Amino acid sequence: MARMHLTQALHKGVSQVPQATAVVFGERRRSFAEVTGRVARLAAALRALGLAPGGRAGMLALNCDRYLEFFYAVWWAGGVVNPVNIRWSASEIAYSLDDCDTRILFVDAQFQPLAGELRQRSRSLTTLVYTGEGPAPQGMLGFEDLLAAHAPCEDAQRGGDDLAAVMYTGGTTGLPKGVMLTHANMFTNSLNTLATIARGPDTVCIQTAPMFHIGGVALMLQVLQWLGRQVILPAFDETVLLETIQREKGTETFIVPTMLKRVIEHPRLAEYDVSSLRILFYGAAPIDDALLEQALRKLPTAGFWQVYGMTELSPVVTALPPRCHRPGAGPGGKLRSAGLPLLSVEVRIVDPQGQPVATGAVGEIAVRGPTVMAGYWNKPAETAAVLRDGWMHTGDGGRMDEDGYVYVVDRIKDMVVTGGENVYSAEVENAIAQLPQVSMCAVIGVPDEQWGERVHAVVVLREDAPLTAQALIAHCKTRIAGYKCPRSVEFVDAIPLSAAGKMLKYKLRERYWAGRDRRVA
Amino acid sequence: MARMHLTQALHKGVSQVPQATAVVFGERRRSFAEVTGRVARLAAALRALGLAPGGRAGMLALNCDRYLEFFYAVWWAGGVVNPVNIRWSASEIAYSLDDCDTRILFVDAQFQPLAGELRQRSRSLTTLVYTGEGPAPQGMLGFEDLLAAHAPCEDAQRGGDDLAAVMYTGGTTGLPKGVMLTHANMFTNSLNTLATIARGPDTVCIQTAPMFHIGGVALMLQVLQWLGRQVILPAFDETVLLETIQREKGTETFIVPTMLKRVIEHPRLAEYDVSSLRILFYGAAPIDDALLEQALRKLPTAGFWQVYGMTELSPVVTALPPRCHRPGAGPGGKLRSAGLPLLSVEVRIVDPQGQPVATGAVGEIAVRGPTVMAGYWNKPAETAAVLRDGWMHTGDGGRMDEDGYVYVVDRIKDMVVTGGENVYSAEVENAIAQLPQVSMCAVIGVPDEQWGERVHAVVVLREDAPLTAQALIAHCKTRIAGYKCPRSVEFVDAIPLSAAGKMLKYKLRERYWAGRDRRVA
Repeated sequence: MARMHLTQALHKGVSQVPQATAVVFGERRRSFAEVTGRVARLAAALRALGLAPGGRAGMLALNCDRYLEFFYAVWWAGGVVNPVNIRWSASEIAYSLDDCDTRILFVDAQFQPLAGELRQRSRSLTTLVYTGEGPAPQGMLGFEDLLAAHAPCEDAQRGGDDLAAVMYTGGTTGLPKGVMLTHANMFTNSLNTLATIARGPDTVCIQTAPMFHIGGVALMLQVLQWLGRQVILPAFDETVLLETIQREKGTETFIVPTMLKRVIEHPRLAEYDVSSLRILFYGAAPIDDALLEQALRKLPTAGFWQVYGMTELSPVVTALPPRCHRPGAGPGGKLRSAGLPLLSVEVRIVDPQGQPVATGAVGEIAVRGPTVMAGYWNKPAETAAVLRDGWMHTGDGGRMDEDGYVYVVDRIKDMVVTGGENVYSAEVENAIAQLPQVSMCAVIGVPDEQWGERVHAVVVLREDAPLTAQALIAHCKTRIAGYKCPRSVEFVDAIPLSAAGKMLKYKLRERYWAGRDRRVA
Repeated sequence: MARMHLTQALHKGVSQVPQATAVVFGERRRSFAEVTGRVARLAAALRALGLAPGGRAGMLALNCDRYLEFFYAVWWAGGVVNPVNIRWSASEIAYSLDDCDTRILFVDAQFQPLAGELRQRSRSLTTLVYTGEGPAPQGMLGFEDLLAAHAPCEDAQRGGDDLAAVMYTGGTTGLPKGVMLTHANMFTNSLNTLATIARGPDTVCIQTAPMFHIGGVALMLQVLQWLGRQVILPAFDETVLLETIQREKGTETFIVPTMLKRVIEHPRLAEYDVSSLRILFYGAAPIDDALLEQALRKLPTAGFWQVYGMTELSPVVTALPPRCHRPGAGPGGKLRSAGLPLLSVEVRIVDPQGQPVATGAVGEIAVRGPTVMAGYWNKPAETAAVLRDGWMHTGDGGRMDEDGYVYVVDRIKDMVVTGGENVYSAEVENAIAQLPQVSMCAVIGVPDEQWGERVHAVVVLREDAPLTAQALIAHCKTRIAGYKCPRSVEFVDAIPLSAAGKMLKYKLRERYWAGRDRRVA
């Protein structure tokens, strides 16, 4: 049966351009033939270590060339990858390893100090492979030793609906869930993104997004399928990124807006030749107007692509093309949009009963198509809650305009339901943020005897910029409907943020909801 | 399970751009919402007419908007399309209908005169639907009557490995074979071609390739998936094509080189504004240098894309991009190449044992990946002969250069095996064609006591240009290896050609091989 195999990219590389450089990491440059040879050896080692068809192997590491080889070797051997979130604690990591019975874990020098604790905490872990340089520490196998000890094996040729990855997503509540993605899921995402975002014949991707994250994985896959070159950086650093784009003639990279800010505010930006950059992906968060205008001016050759997605969707749902990124593309423009659904991605905006709402109305973003995950590992109830009739219910609130552009307005769980009306916190926050006195604000729903929930604003003011709750509410009434305006306001010194800079609203809500159930749409 | 559905394009159209014009045919212009509404009604009619899930429905017609509606309605109803080759005789058509048990056949006004004979000859046919204008002839149902009589039904949502089409390929020997293509096969070909050949936001395709042919079907599918517009012409006519490009601001079309010649030699070409044309696909045959230079000069906005493929591969295998079409791209250029394998298409060149040959060496072109057909309908032996270990053996001889470009040199069955050596007739023909006296030549293998087969040249000379067999052979010896040179030469007045202008070598061979078996590699 003709199926989509993620390892096909290596076979194509060996067949079409065996000597072309596929992967660059520091001083190491390897061709498609070399990478494939190493992958086939590592796959043989994995089988010898007991990796069964469909068995899981994990990796806990910063980005490196061996991360790419880990992915492809596991697939070549017939296994399933479980890339580990490097920001997690040992107990969270151990939970995710045990949850999907990952027995083999690759660990780099950076995270080697965690190895002992992981071995202690995890029930499933049997084998640790050291991916750092030099000899492997006691109790760990060496990556290069394994390669040296094994002859290449045949590709297991798993594909199609076979599982390729279990990617754990944390979320701010509950235990991490293992998103199950198939070969066809991830392969199709590559085709979708390549069809939407055309690449040239000399593609050089600077990979600085974390490779444990679906964003990094997806970029790695599509560049390899395109038979382009990827230059892998251990982590994001604006100076290293600029140096690398210049040295390697990088044509594309993927960063988040806060990283973009650090790049364009780099004091020596003008000294680097980054004219090779043609595609600049940035994630999820809409870009700030001022930042965008500055970025477009300072990186004039780059086409800006905003991408919106989630792990459960392999991941890209929509993309906003460069033509929508013109400076000053204000009212009527599409700059506030997350863009158009990709080729095989069907998006609709639904009400709580799963029925489509009218064009322009806000509801939950639901997605159908071949990139929808197979489900959450061993969590049938959680799977059934989001996958209904083939539709993935994203939990994101959004709307679609008459041209088919999607706007992400809020997480559904951050929506406030007051007196039977849905209020999207982002809309209220936008209104409040227009006040010059406001430095940051979060809008949450808090329990209310009369309204079920009421709209509550948590506000950080700028220094020496007094503002009363009454004035804030009065301002909102000039901008948004009365029922959307805050009924109570709380001034605080700071709002708790995640490492990625997202507001942790569940922490704000805790105090109000302690001991009560807050239903989430 | 997340699968690829061909009908997804309509759902996306309705969701994203319901009012955008999807299909234009003459005076009729229909939006995505209108086309989808009609498709859902016709699907209901097909079910009422007894089309079972997986059942076949055929169409025998020139191109029209109803042809597109036929395709999508059959899929929407859960069925399988069997588009009929309009060049076939009634007995060939009846054979193909009966072979895959097609019971419902759509017929247009042009082919309505064949309906009676088809009904007589075919055992499977039960229902004829008239797609022409005006009332349906006796014994046929009317297309618009069916639409009017049925309310829209739900999409059957078949997809993935479900069968979508049985496409009959004739070939020059034996009975037609029904190529079975799945939803995933055809959907993936769309993604492949869209990823390789980037489209713009205002795509308008002028559909003049026959819609019964995989080339026309594939173009229809990808333009609809892109949510572009297609303007359907009943058949190729250079004047109509030029008028239509100008009127509809056509951005792309697909024609064969002989049609291209008629376009660029059109006496009033300069009077048409065809500056909207950005993509010009042309099929299979490499383009003639002189024709190309003329075409590039006369159609300066168009990017030329040569595509090579076959029905069994859904169909596109390789594409040669515009950058390889520079005029005068002679030695060292890629103009003689069929281009690079598409994204999910793995190509290798194999020897008769199926083993890869060295880079640059000639062998059989074999293809693996998600666009490989499911097999030939009800022909397990023929299927097993070409599908081995997931590889489709194309029957085309070819080579791949060090940059991964594929060159199609010959049909394998036209290869001559002499004294254990493979000789590709195209190579010998190229050598002979360099003689100014030669107007046309065909090289075939004929039985030989000593060599098994010997290289035999059939040559048409120009008027008043004498040439001896000895001189011809002596010329060849200066160009190609001795064993490749003809051992016998036959001068004739004409070489039999197919309607498409291809030399019918099997006719030349008949005389020599009468009563013998000629094994084909």
